[in-house]
Amino acid sequence: MEINAVKRKIPSRIEGYGETGEKLYEGAFARVPSGYRAGPRMRAAVPNGGSKVAGGIKEAVMASGLKSGMTVSFHHHLRNGDFVVNEVIRACAELGIVDLTIFPTALFDVHKAIIPYIESGVVTKIMGSVNGAIGKLVSEGKLDTPVVLRSHGGRPRAVVSGDVHIDVAFIAAPTADRAGNISGRMGKSACGSIGYAFTDAEYADVVVAVTDNLQSFPISPISIPGIYVDLVAVTDSIGDPAGIVSGTTKVTRDPLRLLIASYASKLIEASPYFMDGISFQTGAGGIPLAVTAFMKEAMKRRNITGSFGLGGITGYFVDLMREGLVRKLMDVQSFDLEAVNSISSDPNHIEISADWYANPWNCGVAVNMLDIVILGATEVDTDFNANVNTEADGALLHGIGGHQDTAAGAKLTIIAQPLLRGRIPCVVEHVHTVTTPGDVVDALVTEFGVTLNPRRQDLFDAVADFAISSQMPFVTMEELAARARALSGPMEPIHVADRVVAVVEWRDGTVIDVVRQIER
Amino acid sequence: MEINAVKRKIPSRIEGYGETGEKLYEGAFARVPSGYRAGPRMRAAVPNGGSKVAGGIKEAVMASGLKSGMTVSFHHHLRNGDFVVNEVIRACAELGIVDLTIFPTALFDVHKAIIPYIESGVVTKIMGSVNGAIGKLVSEGKLDTPVVLRSHGGRPRAVVSGDVHIDVAFIAAPTADRAGNISGRMGKSACGSIGYAFTDAEYADVVVAVTDNLQSFPISPISIPGIYVDLVAVTDSIGDPAGIVSGTTKVTRDPLRLLIASYASKLIEASPYFMDGISFQTGAGGIPLAVTAFMKEAMKRRNITGSFGLGGITGYFVDLMREGLVRKLMDVQSFDLEAVNSISSDPNHIEISADWYANPWNCGVAVNMLDIVILGATEVDTDFNANVNTEADGALLHGIGGHQDTAAGAKLTIIAQPLLRGRIPCVVEHVHTVTTPGDVVDALVTEFGVTLNPRRQDLFDAVADFAISSQMPFVTMEELAARARALSGPMEPIHVADRVVAVVEWRDGTVIDVVRQIER
Repeated sequence: MEINAVKRKIPSRIEGYGETGEKLYEGAFARVPSGYRAGPRMRAAVPNGGSKVAGGIKEAVMASGLKSGMTVSFHHHLRNGDFVVNEVIRACAELGIVDLTIFPTALFDVHKAIIPYIESGVVTKIMGSVNGAIGKLVSEGKLDTPVVLRSHGGRPRAVVSGDVHIDVAFIAAPTADRAGNISGRMGKSACGSIGYAFTDAEYADVVVAVTDNLQSFPISPISIPGIYVDLVAVTDSIGDPAGIVSGTTKVTRDPLRLLIASYASKLIEASPYFMDGISFQTGAGGIPLAVTAFMKEAMKRRNITGSFGLGGITGYFVDLMREGLVRKLMDVQSFDLEAVNSISSDPNHIEISADWYANPWNCGVAVNMLDIVILGATEVDTDFNANVNTEADGALLHGIGGHQDTAAGAKLTIIAQPLLRGRIPCVVEHVHTVTTPGDVVDALVTEFGVTLNPRRQDLFDAVADFAISSQMPFVTMEELAARARALSGPMEPIHVADRVVAVVEWRDGTVIDVVRQIER
Repeated sequence: MEINAVKRKIPSRIEGYGETGEKLYEGAFARVPSGYRAGPRMRAAVPNGGSKVAGGIKEAVMASGLKSGMTVSFHHHLRNGDFVVNEVIRACAELGIVDLTIFPTALFDVHKAIIPYIESGVVTKIMGSVNGAIGKLVSEGKLDTPVVLRSHGGRPRAVVSGDVHIDVAFIAAPTADRAGNISGRMGKSACGSIGYAFTDAEYADVVVAVTDNLQSFPISPISIPGIYVDLVAVTDSIGDPAGIVSGTTKVTRDPLRLLIASYASKLIEASPYFMDGISFQTGAGGIPLAVTAFMKEAMKRRNITGSFGLGGITGYFVDLMREGLVRKLMDVQSFDLEAVNSISSDPNHIEISADWYANPWNCGVAVNMLDIVILGATEVDTDFNANVNTEADGALLHGIGGHQDTAAGAKLTIIAQPLLRGRIPCVVEHVHTVTTPGDVVDALVTEFGVTLNPRRQDLFDAVADFAISSQMPFVTMEELAARARALSGPMEPIHVADRVVAVVEWRDGTVIDVVRQIER
């Protein structure tokens, strides 16, 4: 057993993952890259008149040379509407392919269809976010090897550094042409940005575009050029539009959450970052969207214009750009129909890859241009460590997303969350799982006010006067923890076995924590 | 001495280039890639608040770590208006850096400013197209090591395969931001596409954007993302707009050339490729543009719509797209102001890299989607070998451009040229330099009619009837050569020394010919 820099006990060796000695988390910025990126496979030109269309998914799997024991990757822009993962795994099963490692950016409830293939050994390892039913399966120890969780930036880092070698990438392509050019913007299954798929396309040995909208060569605009794509599979439908894009994302109406959002917004307005050119990421949650709404008013009131909005983009951000309150959007995932329509028509709405968005070993990473990020967490502890992966019962139900990356990159990282969810406290002495270390979390905002990380005395000095004049209360972490304890009453400790069911990597590839099997 | 597959005598070893034994040209499609592409250097993220702006060019050269003996690359989208090559070399000279290999996509007359630095040993080797004054210098043997000529596709192939390692790439950036995002579309030195620079940005150890238009982060649209750029140098002017873009490109008015263009256009109309979805590349020359004009009429007459225009794009092609005669433009270099304006505003005008455009070791290469290409040549021989590099006196005055790539990629490769230029014959028994082998040239069109490569009996059969009905004469290569001989009279043989001053690589990296020092 080893102890890492966030005081977590990590087994020296994790069956199905490997030795951890060289890979222990040492600090948010301790590990620096050296050497060269992995080189993608060299390809020969397809002769003139040749087409990459291989038939359907099964034919493409055959043509790809996919074999038992290989690693196949997927991206999750079709979210809970995705048909591609299920169809590919089913085709593999029908072809007698077993022992696959799957490397999706994230799996959702829709992917419970692959559970029988996990049980039958077609899929034996998962590296990627597991939400919902598959997370539950993993938590209960039903996979022989631990899931590896990586952030949106940690995943491309793992690929470009050669930690993960993708044998075959399957890319859900809302539009494609016979040369393999791909766009997420057009087609009945349009999802907007397909930023998570770029690195897979660039580095996989074989790349298969799976489309339900084959158009004449060349399509435009092109998200991923055919220079990275080997085969095109054509199928009736790659997804269910209802699950791919949501309707307009909504700001919370809950008074408690609105109060939290107003405190967070005041903290931002008080901060030295609230000036022309401010940039922010708020994602699609109810509280962060409300923060954006409050900030919008403050920006108008003080005549401030933002530079860019980052990350997963919602219609709310699109409106901000249309109203001139931010100049640009940098979009790795378009959450709703308005975002899809905007990226399809507005050159100020920029599609970015996950590598560009969040990879710490990338000299142009967008999170490092960010002023403000508003995040959530299932728990935060008194060291400001945040847990976004496991729930109160210890079950692994959420991926890391961009949590680690934006927290590490932004100048001001705010976790905005009610102190309790039901009677479950969100501030604890020790989080069950450390996803993001307290070293990169600057503030926790709850209905009791703003709790600044003592590390950020500079921030306290900068905002103290404004806080008094605008009635923004400060509360210490110790007060908050005591309140949470008092309100929730004694909590049942989580019962876990020794067995590791998931490894949580910090974005640099080190092990920041492990998730153990829950006992019921 | 060795003999390659186009019967050229190639020294077994070329001083300053190396052994040729393994690198002899074996056939247009003989060499196939294997293994993996070179991996670019891994970079650490720039901390938030950090900027890549290094000061001016000299400061950026210092910050880049550029040292004597290294390889530096440039791209030529600023053409004869470019200031960047001269300024960088001057800065290197002032910093005492010597023995540089320069790896430009092309040098023009404006770059004669570097001749003193060649003479003083700052620059000791050139890999790239040498037009005009520097070509003359090379032809006369003033460089100690031979120039290496590569096509637009051969150059990125050399980089991605690791044949050429770029230490520092300097990218002329008409617009950039502090994070190193680059666009060619905006700014006082706008040049449109910067497609030749992409591979340099992706593979060089250090990448410097040189800009005269630093804008707020993030700019959009972005041609090259800052994820590939290490430093930004800011200077007053990167080029002279008068030399960067020409005015509207003009169709020839010379009756002889119009006749040639009409024959070429008839050949295309007669060919099996003249159907909906036809694609073509014609470049910016007077005859090819006239061919396009004739084709346009034929397309309207026969109600045919093209799919895409490729290559260096002119206003003429932009008009074709606006009139609905081609759906898309794929642009590696925007020749005139109309093309620059179009690529800046029209999503159907697609910016493509040289790798995408022409690299034979790329599974999505655009030249392999091409139906028709119209090319020129200084000479064609009775084996249909074409010379585009050397003039009648043996002087090396032109680069390869996309000649080899489009000829090898297109379904119908036409060289359209008058039989004589002045009294110099363009059809000879043996070209002085083989740039493009006859194996990939399908037709020569002169004022005497169409000369088909006997290899293309299929094409003769397809067009014969149309030729008779449309008064398109056929002439054999032997007749043509005899006419040329008769018209030109006896030619003075070219006097060359043994010494090799340039190596002409076929696009796959093999040696197709060498250029020897001229004797005056």
